[in-house]
Amino acid sequence: MSEFWKSLPTLREDLQRVKDIILRQIQPSPEPVRTVLAELVESNGKLLRPAFVLLAAGFSELEPEDTQERIRKVGAGVEMLHMATLVHDDLLDGSPTRRGVPAVHVRKGPKSAVLIGDYLFTRSFVLLAENASTVNAKRLSRVVSRICTSEIEQAEDRFDPSVTVGRYLRRIMGKIAALFAISFYVGAVEGGCPPALANNLRKVGFNLGMGFQIIDDILDFVGTPDRLGKPVGQDLRDGSLTLPVILALTDDDGELAGVLTKPEYSDREIEEIVRMVVARGGVEQARSVAARYTRRARREIDALPAGLTRDALHQVAARLLEREY
Amino acid sequence: MSEFWKSLPTLREDLQRVKDIILRQIQPSPEPVRTVLAELVESNGKLLRPAFVLLAAGFSELEPEDTQERIRKVGAGVEMLHMATLVHDDLLDGSPTRRGVPAVHVRKGPKSAVLIGDYLFTRSFVLLAENASTVNAKRLSRVVSRICTSEIEQAEDRFDPSVTVGRYLRRIMGKIAALFAISFYVGAVEGGCPPALANNLRKVGFNLGMGFQIIDDILDFVGTPDRLGKPVGQDLRDGSLTLPVILALTDDDGELAGVLTKPEYSDREIEEIVRMVVARGGVEQARSVAARYTRRARREIDALPAGLTRDALHQVAARLLEREY
Repeated sequence: MSEFWKSLPTLREDLQRVKDIILRQIQPSPEPVRTVLAELVESNGKLLRPAFVLLAAGFSELEPEDTQERIRKVGAGVEMLHMATLVHDDLLDGSPTRRGVPAVHVRKGPKSAVLIGDYLFTRSFVLLAENASTVNAKRLSRVVSRICTSEIEQAEDRFDPSVTVGRYLRRIMGKIAALFAISFYVGAVEGGCPPALANNLRKVGFNLGMGFQIIDDILDFVGTPDRLGKPVGQDLRDGSLTLPVILALTDDDGELAGVLTKPEYSDREIEEIVRMVVARGGVEQARSVAARYTRRARREIDALPAGLTRDALHQVAARLLEREY
Repeated sequence: MSEFWKSLPTLREDLQRVKDIILRQIQPSPEPVRTVLAELVESNGKLLRPAFVLLAAGFSELEPEDTQERIRKVGAGVEMLHMATLVHDDLLDGSPTRRGVPAVHVRKGPKSAVLIGDYLFTRSFVLLAENASTVNAKRLSRVVSRICTSEIEQAEDRFDPSVTVGRYLRRIMGKIAALFAISFYVGAVEGGCPPALANNLRKVGFNLGMGFQIIDDILDFVGTPDRLGKPVGQDLRDGSLTLPVILALTDDDGELAGVLTKPEYSDREIEEIVRMVVARGGVEQARSVAARYTRRARREIDALPAGLTRDALHQVAARLLEREY
């Protein structure tokens, strides 16, 4: 289990059970696939989304033990949806590794990667249909369908410097924040929280997701390869123009835009772009946008009922948002 | 709407409504995707699976109008699951066309094809979660997860002449017959048929699916390109060894097996294989296996309550199973 949860051993133990549920769910898959999936589950994922489900449910005052197990199953279903999108994303992006191990498409080939992702989708729906309410199963499916359309839009926006801040924000909303938000919301509702509290928790997830992704995008400009686990400028290399670039373009004399319109960027050009983005204040401005979401997330957490669950949530938020960027 | 339903205009009209439901479900997708999906829906698909859902529900004695619309939505959800697997299959098989129009991966590229398939999966789950019972939504998801594992197994069996009849039958069960069977079963249950009747209908679907697929595999050896819409020997070209080959191998002196173990087959070798399979009685024997399933399907239909719905089902079975093979 990831080091990330070291200071929250109870949650960590719960997440270990979530992992076991996922492993049981993939049992019926044919042998070589099962091993690949099991290794993916065992690798160093933080299981953030199930953690959100569990933390949100922790705000309920009910929680008999049988609800707990059901909530863990819902968390497992959410993580499997996420895993399905990861397996497909790694294939589509040509990413060689995931969580330090070779990506599924590298190990089993592109065809199996498509089918293994599909398998995870359908198995997660089996689990969710069984353990979540109909309306929550529907909400989760809808959010994941939105992840797909956001990815399609992102693919179409590649190497296109006319992308606006609004379109960027909508894209990361669809790709990340919506699933963070619905994980909190579904956990809260399934746990038996009253609607107003569930809505507060949804907002925590939303702002956490937005802040988290913007920081990720900033780190592509100012991180070190060592800390990122990938080279600086990887998003640029893929043609993905994120917030720092988009903001830098608002203070550009045409030089940056000129390089960006090329159909692909050389290593030299990527260095150039990074330099120009920093020089035009793109990173600085993106930091202040991230800070806005971070502040909102904290404010929403502060508005939750005081107690150990809220303290734990503050810790998680700090760890996700206080990265050096 | 497909010519296939010409003699059953009421069912045809119902299927038109199923189509409209699917079109509404894909409304939220971003524009270029929506057009591609709409064209896929509008192209010449027979909508067999929703037809099975509707026909099975037709054996119920209940059927008030609001159930009818819900059943159509369940049918639409089943068709969307099927469409998702088709979009991915065409990509994985490199098929250039589907129902006479260029395949999605050809029109939108492989990345979008993966995401469009995922989008269809998740949208269909939204529809099924809303309109089918939890247990039926689960059954459908499980069958589709089995389609994925069957495809993975099939990919691993490519160019492998040691595949047994049992493994072949399990594979087409997972790929085709299970979804045919569950379409009948879910339609029956959602329509309010008693359990014994729903089980009979499930068996109709199963035998229909097995017979249908075996005939399809036979046609790869004896069909004409004109009627098939694809060249003879296409399965062989993809390395897929089907029932006629497997049966021919039981009466082989090593000559056929020798060619089959090659890592790919030239056009000349495909002609050779087809000739040897026919000469060794592979097609003949496969026909008798298909006939067995066809007979069983008919017997199961005969056991259903007499009436117009049963007559319609006999017509459908005849059209699916009495192809020249």
